[in-house]
Amino acid sequence: MAWRSDEVSIEKITERAFDLTVNGQNVPGVYWRPKSGNANRIALLGHGGSTHKKVEYVQLVATLLAQRGIASMAIDGPGHGERASGSEVRSTEGFSDIWNAGGGTQGIVADWHAALNFIEAEEGVRPACWWGLSMGTMMGLPVTASDTRIRVALLGLMGIWGPNGDDLKRLAPEVLCPVRFLVQWDDEIVPREACLELYDALGSEKKTLHANPGIHTAVPQTEIAGSVEYLDRYLK
Amino acid sequence: MAWRSDEVSIEKITERAFDLTVNGQNVPGVYWRPKSGNANRIALLGHGGSTHKKVEYVQLVATLLAQRGIASMAIDGPGHGERASGSEVRSTEGFSDIWNAGGGTQGIVADWHAALNFIEAEEGVRPACWWGLSMGTMMGLPVTASDTRIRVALLGLMGIWGPNGDDLKRLAPEVLCPVRFLVQWDDEIVPREACLELYDALGSEKKTLHANPGIHTAVPQTEIAGSVEYLDRYLK
Repeated sequence: MAWRSDEVSIEKITERAFDLTVNGQNVPGVYWRPKSGNANRIALLGHGGSTHKKVEYVQLVATLLAQRGIASMAIDGPGHGERASGSEVRSTEGFSDIWNAGGGTQGIVADWHAALNFIEAEEGVRPACWWGLSMGTMMGLPVTASDTRIRVALLGLMGIWGPNGDDLKRLAPEVLCPVRFLVQWDDEIVPREACLELYDALGSEKKTLHANPGIHTAVPQTEIAGSVEYLDRYLK
Repeated sequence: MAWRSDEVSIEKITERAFDLTVNGQNVPGVYWRPKSGNANRIALLGHGGSTHKKVEYVQLVATLLAQRGIASMAIDGPGHGERASGSEVRSTEGFSDIWNAGGGTQGIVADWHAALNFIEAEEGVRPACWWGLSMGTMMGLPVTASDTRIRVALLGLMGIWGPNGDDLKRLAPEVLCPVRFLVQWDDEIVPREACLELYDALGSEKKTLHANPGIHTAVPQTEIAGSVEYLDRYLK
């Protein structure tokens, strides 16, 4: 459990890598904070499948959050980014294999739990939120359901579907914090109906669904900006 | 076609009633504008079933729009408000009867068309938008589909359902402007599936669906405020 290096400055935010060992596996992570002012809140950013902790849109969200005084952190999911072993992530079967090799839903919850513990120990305890779509929801819904430190979540592009569909179905009623849930109406990967069912299953009293036309990856920029505004509004 | 009276001041907006005759029927309306500044845009506000042109939430929307420099107008739908003849609006059958007595979809489009013509003749031509839920969408979707003056619309709480369900299904693909569409997830009046189908049928390239838990009338206040912000953003 250690910082990997000193901070690096990127425009108005600083970035610092860290490494954890969780259940015998290396879990590399990154922490971003606004360069000026105190970041008294933090967001956990879950990347999508076939990408990694520093994929472009995760960095964009981290930057937008930093502008509102919110720090961010991200880790690589199993078999992704620096945890990739060269096996094929893009096939459904390959994805399922690496997901399970990482310990499945229980494993990823342990990874994020350890990562938030590390950041809290280093940087202090702050109100936390989740932002993650697609695989970012496969990870984030179980984390949100099981870690009461998460007070509001941006989820979506996922349904009762895929390698941990049964876990998502079981855990969704245990999500009780406010949730905004994004659906791509013409999602060619996760069927629309499966997404609507997952939204339906969420236990949160305050949950709002935003759907837009287009394929899985075609989330409108206004929704990304709006998602950050949403987290900012509810994260107290 | 005439103003009924002078303007009345209500806090920061002025209100003025008018009367039209359309296809031999009296169509009473009301026009609101911000007291200060030039209102260089206008919104058409459609009330819901069993209510009327000056129902509380319509006045709230008019007030919120006025704060953004947008004028508003509303008319009573057939059998509603000052067009009520005492017949029962609340039963499904009664509602269908008064809807048809008003000339059905074609009749209501003619009413709104005449109302916008009147206001444009009196107050000048301005970019126009629609705001209307439930019966406000039964009226507004056909108006938006057939009147190119409407540049953006807030619709919802309605589906391919009810007295003009077939018209809505036929006309939805002809709606091409940006639309935000509200759905109440536990709508006990208009089935959720029928609402999702109507959203699906809209021809607009930019259309976004916002769903929230709760019954037909339990639209969250944040959605009302957000709907006004949405119209303001897109109405150019």
